[in-house]
Amino acid sequence: MQKEKYRLQLPGPTPVPPRVQLAMSRPMIGHRDPDCAQLVQDLSERLRPIFGTPNPVLLLTGSGTSALEAAAANTVSEGEEAAVVVSGAFGDRFAQILDSMQVKVHRLDIEWGKACRPEELADFLKQHSRVKAVFLTFCETSTGVLNPIPELAREVREHTEALTIVDGVSCIGGTPAKAEEWGVDILVTGSQKALMLPPGLAFAAVSDRAWKRVEANTHPRYYLDFRQYRKSLEKANTPNTPAVSLFFGLEEVLNMLEEEGLENVYARHRLMRDILRKGIEALGLPLLTENRDASPTVTAVKGGADWSVEDLRKELRQLGVRVAGGQQRLKGKVFRIGHMGYADPLDMLSTLSALEVALKRIGAPVETGAGMKAAEEEWIRVSRVNH
Amino acid sequence: MQKEKYRLQLPGPTPVPPRVQLAMSRPMIGHRDPDCAQLVQDLSERLRPIFGTPNPVLLLTGSGTSALEAAAANTVSEGEEAAVVVSGAFGDRFAQILDSMQVKVHRLDIEWGKACRPEELADFLKQHSRVKAVFLTFCETSTGVLNPIPELAREVREHTEALTIVDGVSCIGGTPAKAEEWGVDILVTGSQKALMLPPGLAFAAVSDRAWKRVEANTHPRYYLDFRQYRKSLEKANTPNTPAVSLFFGLEEVLNMLEEEGLENVYARHRLMRDILRKGIEALGLPLLTENRDASPTVTAVKGGADWSVEDLRKELRQLGVRVAGGQQRLKGKVFRIGHMGYADPLDMLSTLSALEVALKRIGAPVETGAGMKAAEEEWIRVSRVNH
Repeated sequence: MQKEKYRLQLPGPTPVPPRVQLAMSRPMIGHRDPDCAQLVQDLSERLRPIFGTPNPVLLLTGSGTSALEAAAANTVSEGEEAAVVVSGAFGDRFAQILDSMQVKVHRLDIEWGKACRPEELADFLKQHSRVKAVFLTFCETSTGVLNPIPELAREVREHTEALTIVDGVSCIGGTPAKAEEWGVDILVTGSQKALMLPPGLAFAAVSDRAWKRVEANTHPRYYLDFRQYRKSLEKANTPNTPAVSLFFGLEEVLNMLEEEGLENVYARHRLMRDILRKGIEALGLPLLTENRDASPTVTAVKGGADWSVEDLRKELRQLGVRVAGGQQRLKGKVFRIGHMGYADPLDMLSTLSALEVALKRIGAPVETGAGMKAAEEEWIRVSRVNH
Repeated sequence: MQKEKYRLQLPGPTPVPPRVQLAMSRPMIGHRDPDCAQLVQDLSERLRPIFGTPNPVLLLTGSGTSALEAAAANTVSEGEEAAVVVSGAFGDRFAQILDSMQVKVHRLDIEWGKACRPEELADFLKQHSRVKAVFLTFCETSTGVLNPIPELAREVREHTEALTIVDGVSCIGGTPAKAEEWGVDILVTGSQKALMLPPGLAFAAVSDRAWKRVEANTHPRYYLDFRQYRKSLEKANTPNTPAVSLFFGLEEVLNMLEEEGLENVYARHRLMRDILRKGIEALGLPLLTENRDASPTVTAVKGGADWSVEDLRKELRQLGVRVAGGQQRLKGKVFRIGHMGYADPLDMLSTLSALEVALKRIGAPVETGAGMKAAEEEWIRVSRVNH
C-alpha cells in the first residue's frame, strides 16, 4: 500500500483539509502584531455559534486535556465537593484531574456504552446537593455515547446551585451545542476532532455565571488561568504566545463551516453515523451503543467471539484505514470509528468496504457486500427524504 | 509595501523555514499510531545535544510559559522557599508563577539590562540557603541579556542543596547549552524562537537529580505533570494528544540543525549579534547591554532623546520590518531586534538598512550608511578570521 494513502478514521486526530493546511503555511506573524489581534478577536467571536455562547470563546494553546483541567482548576478548589458523571475514559479523566486537585469527588458511574439518564443524575444529585460543580461528558470518545446534555444540565439546575461543566472535545463542531440555552456554564473542546485542525489548540466557552466563580476560585493556576485569558482578550490578545499557525488554520476552518452552514454540517455528521451504523448492523456486528445514545462523531463496535479486534485493526491498517481500539476496560473488546470533521458519507462507505474485506481476511463470518447494501440504501433513503 | 513581504525580526515568534512549513503539511497521523511513537522517540532523543542532557527531552504541547509553570509546579510546593533571579520580564514571570503557587519567593532583582554576576548570587544565596530551587533566566528576552548560567549554577551548588532551574526559551538552539555539565537540573524552552517552529510546543530537559524531586513534589498538577510525560515517553508516547503537526516540523528543524552542525549554528548566531551591534553602535544608538552580557539571539536598543521608539517601530513596519518594543518598565524606552532561528548575517544588514532609513524618516540625527559600513566590516573581519 502507499504509505500515506490512508484514511484516518480515528476519533481524533482527524484529517486536516488541504485548504486548512495551506492556510497554516502562511508566513509567521508576531503574536503582539495588530494582524494577530484582529485574528484573535475574529476567531473568538466567530466560534460563538459553534458553542452556543454569547461570550467570546477563549483560545488556549494546549491539548484537549489542558481545557479539561482549566475547566476544573478555575471553578473548584481543594476540599470542595464536585460531582462527575463517568460514562467512559474521559469522564474518568475529569475525575482524575479533580482527584489531583484534592477536590472531594462524587462519581456517578454509568455502564460504559450507555448514556447517563436524567433521572439517574437527579437521584444522584439529591444525595450530593452541596457540590460546587457537576462535570459531564458530551460525547464520551471511548464509547461513542452522546450524553443528553440539555436534560442533564436541567437536573443540575433543579437539584443544586452547582456549575455545569461539559467536556465537548469529541463532538463540538459536529453536533449542535447551545451552552447558554442549555445552562451549560463551561463548555470546552480541542482542535483535532470535528474542528478539522491539528492538535494543539483548546477552547472554552464560559457563562457569565461561571465567570463569578472563576474570579473567586482559589485553586492555584497560572498558565490555565481563565482570568488572564479574559483580561488579554479584552485587548484582543492571549496571555502567552499562542499557537499562531493553528489560528491561521482555524480561520479557514470557520470559513468552511460557515460556507457549508452549521445545520448542514450537523446533518452530514448524523448521516455519516446512520450510514455507518446500518452497514455495521447488516454485517451482524454488535454496536456498543443503542441508537438513541449514539454520537454523530464516533461509533464503537464490539468484537466477535471468533475473531480479535486487534487483528482486525491490523488488517484494516494494511488496507489503508486507521481505526482506534478500545480504551481502559474496553481494550481488546471494541474498535472505534471516528466520523467527524473533514469526512463525508462516501468515507463511511469506503471504511465499511475495507471493514468487510478485513473481516473476511481474518476469517470472521460475514457476508461480503451486505454492509455496503444496507449502508447505501440508508444513504439513498435519507437523500430522498431531503429532496 | 507588499503586505506579506516583511521581515519578522522579533525575539519570537520567528520565521518558519519553507521546508519546515512543507513538513508540517504532511497528512495527519494518529497520536497512538506506531508512526507517531517512532517520531516521539526520535525527537526526544535528537533534542538532547541542544540541551546538553543525557536524558530524553520531554515534549509539551503549550506555550513557553507552560514549560516555565511545569518547571515550578514539578519541583516546589506551597510554603516552600525558592529563589528567583529577576533580570527582566521573564524572570518576573517565574516569580509570578511561584507566587500563584504560594511558594515563598526570594527575589534577587538585577538592574534590567545587566546580567546577574556570580558573586551577587552567591551573596544572596548565603542568606537563603534553605531554598528548594533557584530559578534563573538564560536569555532574558526583555533585555537581550545572556546570564552566565554555568557560573550561576556553580554558585547554587556551592551554597545550597537547591535545584537549578533555567528558562532557556529565547536562546536554546541559538547558543550552546550543557545542562548536565553545568549542573542545570531543569532547562526549558519553547518552539517559536531559535527552534524555528510556530509557537505551540515546549520542551524540558530534566536531570536525574531533579526527577527525584519531581516524583516527590506535592504541588497539584495534571496536564503539566512531568511524571506523566516520563511514563508515556517510556512507551514512546505523550500523555495527551500532542501538537502532531509541530512534531513533523520539529523533525525537519532537527534535520536542518544537524546538517549545518550545532557549532556552526551557534557561530552564526554570535556573528549576527556582532554585526548588528557594530552597526547600531556606529549609528550612535546606545545598546541596552554591555558586550559581555549580550545574547546571540536578541538585542535591545535604547531610544534617543529626540525621537520616539514607537515612531521608529511604526516606520520600520512601513518598510517591511517588524521589531519588538520594550516590555513593562522598558516600554517606550527600548526596541528589540530578534536574530535567531531562520536568520543569517544578510538579514542583519537589511534590518540595519531599514533602521537607517526609518531613523532618518522620523528625523533622528544619524548618518545614513554609517551603520552599514561598520556592520559590513565586522562581517568581513570575522570571515577573514575564519578562513
